[in-house]
Amino acid sequence: MNEQAPVPPSEDLIARFAGIVGEANALRDGHDIAPYLVENRELYHGRTPVVLRPGTVDEVAAIMKLASETGTRVVPQGGNSGLVGAQTPDPSGTEIVIALGRLNRIREVDARGNVMVVEAGTVLATVQQAADEAGRMFPLSLGAEGSCQIGGNLSSNAGGTAVLAFGNMRSLCLGLEVVLPTGEIWNGLRKLKKDNTGYDLRDLFIGAEGTLGVITAATLKLFAKPKGHEVVFAGIDTPEVALTLFRLAEDLCGTSLTGFELMPRIGVEFTARHIEGVRDPLADPHPWYVLIDISSGQSPEAARSLVEHLFEAAYEDGLIRDAVVAESEQQKHDLWHMRESMSWAQKPEGGSIKHDVSVPVASIPTFLDRAGKAVLEAEPEARIVAFGHIGDGNIHYNISQPLGADKDAFLARWEEMNVIVHGIVMDLEGSISAEHGIGQMKREELARIRQPIEIDLMKRIKASFDPAGIMNPGKVL
Amino acid sequence: MNEQAPVPPSEDLIARFAGIVGEANALRDGHDIAPYLVENRELYHGRTPVVLRPGTVDEVAAIMKLASETGTRVVPQGGNSGLVGAQTPDPSGTEIVIALGRLNRIREVDARGNVMVVEAGTVLATVQQAADEAGRMFPLSLGAEGSCQIGGNLSSNAGGTAVLAFGNMRSLCLGLEVVLPTGEIWNGLRKLKKDNTGYDLRDLFIGAEGTLGVITAATLKLFAKPKGHEVVFAGIDTPEVALTLFRLAEDLCGTSLTGFELMPRIGVEFTARHIEGVRDPLADPHPWYVLIDISSGQSPEAARSLVEHLFEAAYEDGLIRDAVVAESEQQKHDLWHMRESMSWAQKPEGGSIKHDVSVPVASIPTFLDRAGKAVLEAEPEARIVAFGHIGDGNIHYNISQPLGADKDAFLARWEEMNVIVHGIVMDLEGSISAEHGIGQMKREELARIRQPIEIDLMKRIKASFDPAGIMNPGKVL
Repeated sequence: MNEQAPVPPSEDLIARFAGIVGEANALRDGHDIAPYLVENRELYHGRTPVVLRPGTVDEVAAIMKLASETGTRVVPQGGNSGLVGAQTPDPSGTEIVIALGRLNRIREVDARGNVMVVEAGTVLATVQQAADEAGRMFPLSLGAEGSCQIGGNLSSNAGGTAVLAFGNMRSLCLGLEVVLPTGEIWNGLRKLKKDNTGYDLRDLFIGAEGTLGVITAATLKLFAKPKGHEVVFAGIDTPEVALTLFRLAEDLCGTSLTGFELMPRIGVEFTARHIEGVRDPLADPHPWYVLIDISSGQSPEAARSLVEHLFEAAYEDGLIRDAVVAESEQQKHDLWHMRESMSWAQKPEGGSIKHDVSVPVASIPTFLDRAGKAVLEAEPEARIVAFGHIGDGNIHYNISQPLGADKDAFLARWEEMNVIVHGIVMDLEGSISAEHGIGQMKREELARIRQPIEIDLMKRIKASFDPAGIMNPGKVL
Repeated sequence: MNEQAPVPPSEDLIARFAGIVGEANALRDGHDIAPYLVENRELYHGRTPVVLRPGTVDEVAAIMKLASETGTRVVPQGGNSGLVGAQTPDPSGTEIVIALGRLNRIREVDARGNVMVVEAGTVLATVQQAADEAGRMFPLSLGAEGSCQIGGNLSSNAGGTAVLAFGNMRSLCLGLEVVLPTGEIWNGLRKLKKDNTGYDLRDLFIGAEGTLGVITAATLKLFAKPKGHEVVFAGIDTPEVALTLFRLAEDLCGTSLTGFELMPRIGVEFTARHIEGVRDPLADPHPWYVLIDISSGQSPEAARSLVEHLFEAAYEDGLIRDAVVAESEQQKHDLWHMRESMSWAQKPEGGSIKHDVSVPVASIPTFLDRAGKAVLEAEPEARIVAFGHIGDGNIHYNISQPLGADKDAFLARWEEMNVIVHGIVMDLEGSISAEHGIGQMKREELARIRQPIEIDLMKRIKASFDPAGIMNPGKVL
């Protein structure tokens, strides 16, 4: 598909698109459009003749119908917080952008049924809040939650810090409403926990990064709020110890273990140095740290009792060097804030080459050991900030530049570092994109690392859903 | 697809297929073949010239390659315990059967990594046992676990009694190995909890009932064994009370609530009357019953404490009329045995028209009320045995014939009762097949109840994966 060179839409055609959403919601002024053309890290810069901001599903359908009839390429965009360029138009100026932000109604909150139905443009924090106000919890939680939108969370199958207990976005969604490339609307907004009637279309659209259709609404699962919640921060010796401690915590707490994050000493130093309100809560430095989050559906006492049991066993086995238990909501927040700002804390330290990888959980110590040696062989002064969701096997393997080195020269080694880190990941049967997706960034690498038959099957699906190739072209495949 | 009339494979072609697996594993004798041609309920009777029993993935691939080249239609079959005829060849005698039972190696059990890799023909109970021996738990549990195979569990996205806490088969699988209709092998046996690299092929094959390829192996998730386990049986007034009690249990126990089943008085009577070892453990009769299963990762005391908390709150709110807590492993088994044999206990009572439906959890009382009235209007003497996984919104809505009525005359009303029950299900935005799938049984109904665009998308996927239409034709679509 996409064989013929794309042509920018004519003024007349743009006017027809604008007519669907109304002039006020068809942004054409460069200043208005600018925020939609680049993402936070400024890695991708696109161009577009028009950003359409539909307010209803029918408007999205009308846009896609016209796009389909005229062969116009379309890029759907949510909160523009994606990290792989999936939401950015290409630089040709031929692709129009559909920004979903006005499609932000919460259609229904059913506390008794433990479900809510929200439109794609609803900001994640708004969804969390609406669930909270209904006495329930929507567990998806990630750094960008104040700006990212549910449609983007779905399209990227978002992960975050609650995956351990609640799964990623795919696990949190019961149904979808999708506008297909033809403009047809699929109403799959089911509320069913069990439904074995035909192929799993829902999970195909989730994680497809807008290449198969435009997600316009979703049925989300809600959960009971925990009655007790504890946050523990502990200094440990090695990632191997972290893994042993994780298995111990999992055995003792079962599904009450709601978070288990690994952090290196350097990450704690960076956050304490650069992030407002963060300090190292332990008296002495330790090589590695874990953040343990425990929730009880029963009572605060039950949560505290789990922490005590865990400490007892962990100290007995000599796993923990020192630890602190948060004694207030503020302290809980501060400990999580340290972990969540770890990536940002690298910015004042200069250039950072980032990887979002996963390996089988049991292979994390091996991965960290091998990758550390290989990276330091290539650049002995590199400062490795490897942290993340150890219980999910997911490490954000970020490499800060040597102290005082030239930022651009270091960033020019992105590809070199990728090859090193991803090579070890693949050797350990891991993933080069655990939660951020493929987008533009890893498209060529995907084609290289996956089996040809896999890429072929994906292309067949793409071609059968979007034969004209107008739906977010150049992304994923 | 499948436009031309199918032709039975020639003797020569059958010999070539037999050559792949060896004569001993190519069953052609009518007596040997018979068990593969009909399922437990004897609703579907097929014919086939040969049943092939491959012992390796390469043999499966060779079979599919030859089938693809010769346009031979293939029906994959696991433990033959499916309830909708998905595993049965059609009566034309043109379809060959691949029986996966010899592909039954447990390739790996990784207790530390919490995963195991098993071949498709492994019996579910064998998988459970291997996990248990490694000190872990594989939670999928259903009536047929002594004979059903993992490949069939995957192809039907099996549910069962542990879905509430652990999800269905789709949630329990991390990766697949699949032989495609062309004979190509997709090795997707990943062990990753997070992997956002392209379309979700895995979930497309899961639940596809063998129409997109032959699943030959899978990576399965393992879990910590519970340290405490309690089973409660309680008499209650109405399904509405059951729902209130369910939400209370969910709030109090969180993910320690590992089972919540609803049963009617008549179901308890039938099992006590017909099933060895089952008796009503309560002194007086009650209109409805719930079976509550609670597990603690922490300790036996913690599980017991959850039960006590639940009882305290439930009695205070007047939800429970009477209850018993199992005091031994035998009693726990007996209570679950009552629930699991409820469908079988209908057999001695004559004909039974069965439905496997789901509705949004909050709609269960409404569904039972409306369906009960409608069925009794059509047949005032019908005996409705509606039981199931209330926490999943999944009810096995089975209707036993009137006492002393003619069995065949009653069963002849299957379609009539389907229309009544499924009509109400659809009106409540439910599913006509919560866990058993579509197979042959509900294929025409699927086309009727789903939106045309959904069926169209499924057909596009089918055509792009299996353009020759040789893969379990006539099933699902």
